[in-house]
Amino acid sequence: MRSGSYKAGIGELRTEMLKRGLDAALVFTSDEHGSEYIDRHYAFREYLTGFTGSAGSLLVTADEAGLWTDGRYFIQAESELAGSGIALHRLGEKGVRDIFEYTADIAKRFHDRNARLNIGIDLKLITGKAYNRIKQLCDIYGSVVTDVDLAEAVWKDRPAVTHERLEVLSDAVTGRAVKDKLEGIRNKLAEYDTQAVIISDLSDVMWTFNIRGNDISYNPVAVSYGIVDMDTAVLFADRDSVNDELIRIMKKNGVSVRDYASFDGYIQDLKYAKVLCDLKTLNAHVSNLFNGSVTVDKPSWEYIPKYIKNEAEIRRAQEAHVEDGLAVIRFIYKIKKLVKDKLNSSGEINEYDAARMLDDIRRSADGNRGLSFETISAYAQNGAVIHYSPDSTGSAVLKPEGLLLVDSGGQYEGATTDVTRTIALGALTDEMKTDYTTVLKGMTDLADAVFLEGTRGENLDILARRPMWERFVDYRHGTGHGVGAMLNVHEKPQAFRYRISSTDPQPELKAGMITSDEPGIYLEGKYGIRIENLLLCVEKKTNEWGRFLGFETLTTIPYERDAIIPGMLTERQKEIINEYHGRIYRLYSERLDEEERKWLAEVTSKL
Amino acid sequence: MRSGSYKAGIGELRTEMLKRGLDAALVFTSDEHGSEYIDRHYAFREYLTGFTGSAGSLLVTADEAGLWTDGRYFIQAESELAGSGIALHRLGEKGVRDIFEYTADIAKRFHDRNARLNIGIDLKLITGKAYNRIKQLCDIYGSVVTDVDLAEAVWKDRPAVTHERLEVLSDAVTGRAVKDKLEGIRNKLAEYDTQAVIISDLSDVMWTFNIRGNDISYNPVAVSYGIVDMDTAVLFADRDSVNDELIRIMKKNGVSVRDYASFDGYIQDLKYAKVLCDLKTLNAHVSNLFNGSVTVDKPSWEYIPKYIKNEAEIRRAQEAHVEDGLAVIRFIYKIKKLVKDKLNSSGEINEYDAARMLDDIRRSADGNRGLSFETISAYAQNGAVIHYSPDSTGSAVLKPEGLLLVDSGGQYEGATTDVTRTIALGALTDEMKTDYTTVLKGMTDLADAVFLEGTRGENLDILARRPMWERFVDYRHGTGHGVGAMLNVHEKPQAFRYRISSTDPQPELKAGMITSDEPGIYLEGKYGIRIENLLLCVEKKTNEWGRFLGFETLTTIPYERDAIIPGMLTERQKEIINEYHGRIYRLYSERLDEEERKWLAEVTSKL
Repeated sequence: MRSGSYKAGIGELRTEMLKRGLDAALVFTSDEHGSEYIDRHYAFREYLTGFTGSAGSLLVTADEAGLWTDGRYFIQAESELAGSGIALHRLGEKGVRDIFEYTADIAKRFHDRNARLNIGIDLKLITGKAYNRIKQLCDIYGSVVTDVDLAEAVWKDRPAVTHERLEVLSDAVTGRAVKDKLEGIRNKLAEYDTQAVIISDLSDVMWTFNIRGNDISYNPVAVSYGIVDMDTAVLFADRDSVNDELIRIMKKNGVSVRDYASFDGYIQDLKYAKVLCDLKTLNAHVSNLFNGSVTVDKPSWEYIPKYIKNEAEIRRAQEAHVEDGLAVIRFIYKIKKLVKDKLNSSGEINEYDAARMLDDIRRSADGNRGLSFETISAYAQNGAVIHYSPDSTGSAVLKPEGLLLVDSGGQYEGATTDVTRTIALGALTDEMKTDYTTVLKGMTDLADAVFLEGTRGENLDILARRPMWERFVDYRHGTGHGVGAMLNVHEKPQAFRYRISSTDPQPELKAGMITSDEPGIYLEGKYGIRIENLLLCVEKKTNEWGRFLGFETLTTIPYERDAIIPGMLTERQKEIINEYHGRIYRLYSERLDEEERKWLAEVTSKL
Repeated sequence: MRSGSYKAGIGELRTEMLKRGLDAALVFTSDEHGSEYIDRHYAFREYLTGFTGSAGSLLVTADEAGLWTDGRYFIQAESELAGSGIALHRLGEKGVRDIFEYTADIAKRFHDRNARLNIGIDLKLITGKAYNRIKQLCDIYGSVVTDVDLAEAVWKDRPAVTHERLEVLSDAVTGRAVKDKLEGIRNKLAEYDTQAVIISDLSDVMWTFNIRGNDISYNPVAVSYGIVDMDTAVLFADRDSVNDELIRIMKKNGVSVRDYASFDGYIQDLKYAKVLCDLKTLNAHVSNLFNGSVTVDKPSWEYIPKYIKNEAEIRRAQEAHVEDGLAVIRFIYKIKKLVKDKLNSSGEINEYDAARMLDDIRRSADGNRGLSFETISAYAQNGAVIHYSPDSTGSAVLKPEGLLLVDSGGQYEGATTDVTRTIALGALTDEMKTDYTTVLKGMTDLADAVFLEGTRGENLDILARRPMWERFVDYRHGTGHGVGAMLNVHEKPQAFRYRISSTDPQPELKAGMITSDEPGIYLEGKYGIRIENLLLCVEKKTNEWGRFLGFETLTTIPYERDAIIPGMLTERQKEIINEYHGRIYRLYSERLDEEERKWLAEVTSKL
């Protein structure tokens, strides 16, 4: 079904390009707020290519079509693009030029034969930064970039954007009143000598105004903007998503509410001399609107510090992880038993069934408000497809052997969870055990780090990666990402990764950050192993040398005891794992039934 | 003696400032080429303050004087500045403003009372980058920066710059002909769309033209400049330092030689549209000279890749380390024996004697061409002064107990060495042993790293620092620096450090780099421990995951066996140390006399 639709799509796109005199079209995977997860309304690239990965950009000209994506998606993209005629460009591999450089190469060829390349881009879907880059690269060759929404013309049955009711969170949940947050932002405005800030990142808007939405799957955000100056604050949200109660509460906090549709017009009338914004999320269409004001571009985390969780948020994260852990533990017990006993009605159970089973258990967890992302349930060789999610039909049947990788998470009042466990469904090979233990070593070493303030995620990544690298294996993804508080499961700015980027600098690690720790080993055609916990950064000790930080593990779900080779662990690693398992048993033993408890006692017994 | 001279100096400086209408004078520790080590001619700051550290800047106004230095020198500066009335500003400590920001604060106070601050700086001694910064900070307050050499007026008996004969190295020693190096530079000129490059860093000039000088102590460099364009290459060197033979060889390589004194005039006449330079070493006086050309500022290592050693340089480094190691091993044996037996003529031996003893043994090593820096020989509590060097009079007497920290290195034909060993002169406390073993663990773990290409020094620093940080201790210096090939012992650009600097980005680690690995523990008033080896970056394996790199340890000198607590080491660390010691014994046993050999067998025996 897929292969038919996207082939037709590219053809229709070319027809539309011809009609509009465009030589090239660039299609990006984004919404108007630079969100990582997008509404189906914006899934034009997927519609055209059939590639379902969350990251990918498409270039179409009269005689070629190419898709750019990163290491997480190489295997998946290869398979989904097979036979489509769309070339796969593997970002990050040696010598691979990115989509902008590649487009500039085409522009140069046009220029060399005295033509100029007309490029169509929906500027609402790229950032001011990206727009400046493509302009800079292609202007030399006389290229023209046209702001055009080709999806509207080409995509029949394009889904409409949904707007759901906004919810106001209490100060008890958020730990900090809106007034207080606005004061913090205003102090920054003064510090930067700016008069106002445009808040374009959706989770930034949610955090600032202590609200949550439900416009994007899994992310409790609403399509919105915020503008804060020294005296006033304006929240732009869809007219139908707000009620009088919300307007009243906002008013009490000194915030006026306007319709989202009025934002463009409002921006054009702005009379501030200097406006603070983050060109990494503000789209090029909007940033082209203010001509009168000077834009001061700074990463929003410098003035909207949602990545440092306050005491209330930390307490809620701890509580949510206890409930979420119970749900996942029950799932692990159940799926192992089901597969072993083949007890389900149809006589067999597949990856999709397993995912839905977990989702159901999680949704009934105390305080749960849904999932934080689509559950990854990947059996055997599918585990090597890093962002695999099973389809309702045709997903792999689970057998009582090998490994099932399950990466999942939930939304809770005030907190967000994200955990990966790789589950043994039966006998494992020595290779699987060696790889599992290697991944566990790396995960444990990072969680055990002690470091001085001033340290960044790039400094610590090696601790997780080292056991893999010592065996000349790598995982082609970051080691960890920030996690929101009842917000996006991927939250900027911090990350554990080893590439140091001068264009995307990270903040120093601070007490109160929550970051995932998730190394892995992926063997194409065989299996994938990933183990993921969330780590809360905490102070360990302050003395004459400075302030030492470390981590507290929030996730409380046992590892796969049968997959661990104790002889590969250091004494310290063994001690950490034994303590962790002991803590888990104490935490849950009284909340489980007899059989579950017996099983948990076994799998958490000392190594 | 010191305290008298600098007090007088500051007074005379103020008199001179008054005469010239200057409200503030900034005195920097640099020469005209941004060199790390300077000729005595440029030691004006030391002359004025008595502070002998290699890094420090001085600010003098009518009513205050302040010295800025970094963590390596806090203890030393405190002691040397005591009673001088000069305030110590500890760079890197929380809330400490750097000398430029501090000057801007003064400028603001002048501005607030309708005056403007007149600042005197010898622009030959600051980089274009630094000049831009002070201008940017102070211009707001209407300050004026005057280019003035106050040292010439104030400093009686100022030493003259010495120029020694330039030496031409054979291609066998350098591994790469000048013509070949010029071709590489010209390819870069084309790539950057520039017409010429000004080479201002002295070691860059030496590397490019395969020459060595002797104008600065320990650094085999000559005061010089290079200019390379697409057709010509010019070496500017002191008229008296070159002979006909050198001119002939240069001519053969397409290089003309001009007098150093003609450089300023030559620069002013340049007619290139775009000139490549490195504003981190090109001084502000010179960069102010070319008005016609656009300067393209790039770190010189991007086009002068001397930091990646070629095969000939690597072979020479390996050979030099074997000879250097023999010298240091003989010294360690001798000093331990002397202190134990109190066998020297005067009946006692001090730090200074020990340093000279080592220097003598090293100078007689096969192929030695002198020292690569002033030997640090620091006993007991002096070991905690990170850049301590003993005076000929009054240095501490060595007793048969505690720790002697010796950091030293040599120049060899084609190679440079740098090694630190902390030597037990007798009984050690448990605390000393614990700290020694902790440092050794960190040093060993970094040397044992395996990492993918794309990794930088900042990614690996934690491996060395972790054992210290786990015990809530830190060392206030980088973990390692690049080392030249018969060039400066501190060679940019790579370093092992954890601070990520966006203004001073590091290159990725590459096979062929030589970097030191030297963690430490320093307890003020008690002792200092540092262990340092040089690491050669080598390829370990290339497979589907990428190119894995690691290190080969160049230094071959045993650790202090009696200071190691084997129970604190992991099996892997023990294995590495045992292998290392075994290799050392095999390497040297036949080159030692009977007694030395017996001792070496003991100290390299298995843990």
